[in-house]
Amino acid sequence: MKKAELPQPLRGIIPPIITPLLARDTLDKAGLAKLVEHILGGGVHGIFILGTTGELSSLSYRVRHEMVESTCEWVAGRVPVLVGITDTALPESIQLAQTAEKCGAAAVVAAAPYYFSLNQAELTSYYQHLADQLPLPLFLYNMPSHTKISLAPKSVKILAQHPHIVGIKDSSGNGVNFQLLHYQLKDEPDFSLLVGPEELTAEVVLLGAHGGINGGANLFPRLYVDLYEAAVNRDLDRLLPLHQRVLQISTHLYSVGNSQASYLQGVKCALSLMGICRNILAEPLQPFGEKEQKIIRQHLQEIQAALNTKVPV
Amino acid sequence: MKKAELPQPLRGIIPPIITPLLARDTLDKAGLAKLVEHILGGGVHGIFILGTTGELSSLSYRVRHEMVESTCEWVAGRVPVLVGITDTALPESIQLAQTAEKCGAAAVVAAAPYYFSLNQAELTSYYQHLADQLPLPLFLYNMPSHTKISLAPKSVKILAQHPHIVGIKDSSGNGVNFQLLHYQLKDEPDFSLLVGPEELTAEVVLLGAHGGINGGANLFPRLYVDLYEAAVNRDLDRLLPLHQRVLQISTHLYSVGNSQASYLQGVKCALSLMGICRNILAEPLQPFGEKEQKIIRQHLQEIQAALNTKVPV
Amino acid sequence: MKKAELPQPLRGIIPPIITPLLARDTLDKAGLAKLVEHILGGGVHGIFILGTTGELSSLSYRVRHEMVESTCEWVAGRVPVLVGITDTALPESIQLAQTAEKCGAAAVVAAAPYYFSLNQAELTSYYQHLADQLPLPLFLYNMPSHTKISLAPKSVKILAQHPHIVGIKDSSGNGVNFQLLHYQLKDEPDFSLLVGPEELTAEVVLLGAHGGINGGANLFPRLYVDLYEAAVNRDLDRLLPLHQRVLQISTHLYSVGNSQASYLQGVKCALSLMGICRNILAEPLQPFGEKEQKIIRQHLQEIQAALNTKVPV
Amino acid sequence: MKKAELPQPLRGIIPPIITPLLARDTLDKAGLAKLVEHILGGGVHGIFILGTTGELSSLSYRVRHEMVESTCEWVAGRVPVLVGITDTALPESIQLAQTAEKCGAAAVVAAAPYYFSLNQAELTSYYQHLADQLPLPLFLYNMPSHTKISLAPKSVKILAQHPHIVGIKDSSGNGVNFQLLHYQLKDEPDFSLLVGPEELTAEVVLLGAHGGINGGANLFPRLYVDLYEAAVNRDLDRLLPLHQRVLQISTHLYSVGNSQASYLQGVKCALSLMGICRNILAEPLQPFGEKEQKIIRQHLQEIQAALNTKVPV
Repeated sequence: MKKAELPQPLRGIIPPIITPLLARDTLDKAGLAKLVEHILGGGVHGIFILGTTGELSSLSYRVRHEMVESTCEWVAGRVPVLVGITDTALPESIQLAQTAEKCGAAAVVAAAPYYFSLNQAELTSYYQHLADQLPLPLFLYNMPSHTKISLAPKSVKILAQHPHIVGIKDSSGNGVNFQLLHYQLKDEPDFSLLVGPEELTAEVVLLGAHGGINGGANLFPRLYVDLYEAAVNRDLDRLLPLHQRVLQISTHLYSVGNSQASYLQGVKCALSLMGICRNILAEPLQPFGEKEQKIIRQHLQEIQAALNTKVPV
Repeated sequence: MKKAELPQPLRGIIPPIITPLLARDTLDKAGLAKLVEHILGGGVHGIFILGTTGELSSLSYRVRHEMVESTCEWVAGRVPVLVGITDTALPESIQLAQTAEKCGAAAVVAAAPYYFSLNQAELTSYYQHLADQLPLPLFLYNMPSHTKISLAPKSVKILAQHPHIVGIKDSSGNGVNFQLLHYQLKDEPDFSLLVGPEELTAEVVLLGAHGGINGGANLFPRLYVDLYEAAVNRDLDRLLPLHQRVLQISTHLYSVGNSQASYLQGVKCALSLMGICRNILAEPLQPFGEKEQKIIRQHLQEIQAALNTKVPV
Repeated sequence: MKKAELPQPLRGIIPPIITPLLARDTLDKAGLAKLVEHILGGGVHGIFILGTTGELSSLSYRVRHEMVESTCEWVAGRVPVLVGITDTALPESIQLAQTAEKCGAAAVVAAAPYYFSLNQAELTSYYQHLADQLPLPLFLYNMPSHTKISLAPKSVKILAQHPHIVGIKDSSGNGVNFQLLHYQLKDEPDFSLLVGPEELTAEVVLLGAHGGINGGANLFPRLYVDLYEAAVNRDLDRLLPLHQRVLQISTHLYSVGNSQASYLQGVKCALSLMGICRNILAEPLQPFGEKEQKIIRQHLQEIQAALNTKVPV
Repeated sequence: MKKAELPQPLRGIIPPIITPLLARDTLDKAGLAKLVEHILGGGVHGIFILGTTGELSSLSYRVRHEMVESTCEWVAGRVPVLVGITDTALPESIQLAQTAEKCGAAAVVAAAPYYFSLNQAELTSYYQHLADQLPLPLFLYNMPSHTKISLAPKSVKILAQHPHIVGIKDSSGNGVNFQLLHYQLKDEPDFSLLVGPEELTAEVVLLGAHGGINGGANLFPRLYVDLYEAAVNRDLDRLLPLHQRVLQISTHLYSVGNSQASYLQGVKCALSLMGICRNILAEPLQPFGEKEQKIIRQHLQEIQAALNTKVPV
């Protein structure tokens, strides 16, 4: 078991990887290996598994544990692995964290429990209690569109005092809250502030955030790493065209069809067209049919032309 | 293994029972036995386990399967047992349904998957696919406050054609939708239309719905059975004072404190004061502290006085 | 100026009438006269103008004041006229109430201000302040789908103490809240509890509420009056078929097309087919086009057949 | 009547000014003059009246027209004046636009009608129809928290083709939508893209947006102008400390108390402490009481110390 150290704070591009499947309840280990190599080849700074992009909640527990084991084994300590343990049942979160620790993951990530609605005090108390029992450092994960609650900047400030809580992935898309959170954390230089939506990575890194957990990095890892570096270096001439490519990807790959899961459908479909994994989603989500695949293929070719890359589609 | 037949349609009061716990992850089997006897003593027409009131989503899978086994064993075929299999992961729903079938449960109940947001077409397709694979009849469970989606009356009409889908529990509280649903189902006399919120049982049964899956029946099962019968018999003189008691219970036991889970906190606290189970909730929910317990105790005594019952508090 | 007394509590069916228009900003006085006669011919217990069905917020202030004057003049004291004064600007609400008083209206009706979001304390204080300054009794109007806030039962209980606040129209469709509100008001027999959605009138009147402010009574006033009386008389054999007709109307006239205003579009289109007013909505709403008109015509004929009425369509 | 030309695109800081009041329904013309001088003294690029910060919806129409006249008269063509004409009634919007044109305003601004819920097609059609009838150029105003609908980037792209629609103020706070909108508008260099929340001005201007309509510029106009210029010049060393001050203002002045209108209460209270206007809000909003005023005073002093300004508090 090889394990990568977790930098403090964690910086850079950490792709939230999809879970490659052979069937609804069968992990595609060869696809996973291909995906990991594709992503590491782009120079990313870590890998996040079993997030929303990883269809965490749709997988059986058997497959979730397998995904942890297989990813850690294949990554083999080359970058830190972050494991999503989001669950409505605290004992299941802890078990997954124990598997993560055993396999050499660097940290775990948890969104709010998503069945019952909690208030800020209840959510803060939940996270403190969870962190107390975890064998690995914890990243908070703010995902209100899926959990029905947004972690308030003030709650994050309180939680940042907990010795096991080391950062946050904010996927709210709420730019105001992100900046107010940044301000609340101004005296916590080791607390990692990472943004979910890739449309925001350029701007928040320019203003001092630590990086992005961006789904598009499954497809074009180098683009996101380049964008991150341009932002860190305040090189706006280099940054703006890269940012345009990210917006092109978002506009043309993530909103095909009329499902609210069009982002996930688009990413998995594009990866299948690139020969990396199959176009299979776990229920309740459905993969794109032929009509949408055709649209994705065309958009993907346009993006590749703009990026001047040569991966076959 | 004794099994009760499932009437078509299922009618009456089917309490959604709480899950008695000794600790966050330990089932209280003695408490469960006490609760079952308390409820069956009230003349109820079935028992529903692992619903929202049963804290389905907060329990580890080990405890969920134990709960199925213990309840079926103790009920021993005296009334039909309905088992909640709501889950975000379809394979876990199916496994729980298999345990339910093996233990002699009469049916299963599933709310919408609650992490990803689905549209009506996706949700309908999900339910059809789930029902295809279940070894027991399925009740739909409409719970938009927790799942972020409401089953439209038109979707229910489509699903009611599926041979394994036999009824619905509507917990939306949306009276308009309930009546429109009732109208959509006017040609499906065997499809069971049950209401979740007990504040609505009197009126919907008066107008022809089949019964209620009402949380307060954990506490005062006979009251809800009496109310159901008065409504079936259109005996409004008898019905109205019983309905007043139900509203008193809702007003005074379910809105103490400022958690959105005050209903669940209230029910479990009241049951603990009645000596039936402990005042323990699974995380992320917290039980009432002393201050709220004191309020519940006083309100419970007032309700018991109004009901002229003598269970010690 | 003839004025009808306001009964305490106000009971029965009070149609929320549409505003007949010749053009976006021109009142159709002849259409209004026809509509009033049509409705009064059905035996209704009052008329409510400038509610949501009356497109209150889309009309210029000139037209709103004209609508008050023309309606009061034509009704001429035959039934009480209730005037909607809902506005985001308190001075405009008061001016409209002054016109209403001058013209002989019996009461005014106000929903919450709908631009800024208020909390319950702010809303309660707003209503108290408004009521203090009104020359007529005030009905509260709970319309959360349009105002973004629901009047909590506890707030209504406080407001019911105000000498000028005499009732509430609850259009939330939330059956649980309606029953809890009913319970809160159990010691206020003169406070009028009226329901907006006609799908709920049967059941809430059976349980003791005072009546309905139901949009369908624009079309078939007698049906709603009959339904109200059957409910008051607890005559369920008579009530249930009438209730079925109401659900047929709601199902087939109020959900054609894909606008969220399909109810309003349907009512105005049906009234135009019945020769009572024109098929003109004030912007931002649009009237049905030919395709939808055709569907409405067919559904209307089916409903009229079921009702055995003979109004030409 | 002096009138400032409207640049294409409009760039810079355009404060959305508060409406100074002597009483609920009485404009404070002296306060308005003081405020205008205070703001113009900071070098701002325009003035926006009757926006959300201007309490548009709470003012009687008489006061709204007065506010247009008084502001235009006092500004006297020194900067372009933008007039909010947001209304649920289209005829009232047009009348206000006519007054604006007559008085020398440069443009008008309209959010979506906020009583009925519209879909994107209805909203697009509404704006086209409105723009056709306006005597001045129109800015769109995206304000979903108050209007219940967000203008989709695709709708804005369509509307940007209309010859009278010249820009948008996006107050959604949704950073992802803002970037996607920016991408949609990449071929419309004359269409002005302005951001509402001041927490986002630094980052969006860095990436190419045209400026901010920021409430805090009522208080510290120079700060926002400096921040805008630093962003335009890509001078991050200068920008970051200015951005910190903006976040300090937002954190400490806009979230005192527990009203959802705490931002507006904070701005008006701070302006009253600075001697510019009175601490009077139009109903339904309430001004801060003594307790909150004391907190605002202290925070204001800290902010002034950080800014090294000397306005008395």
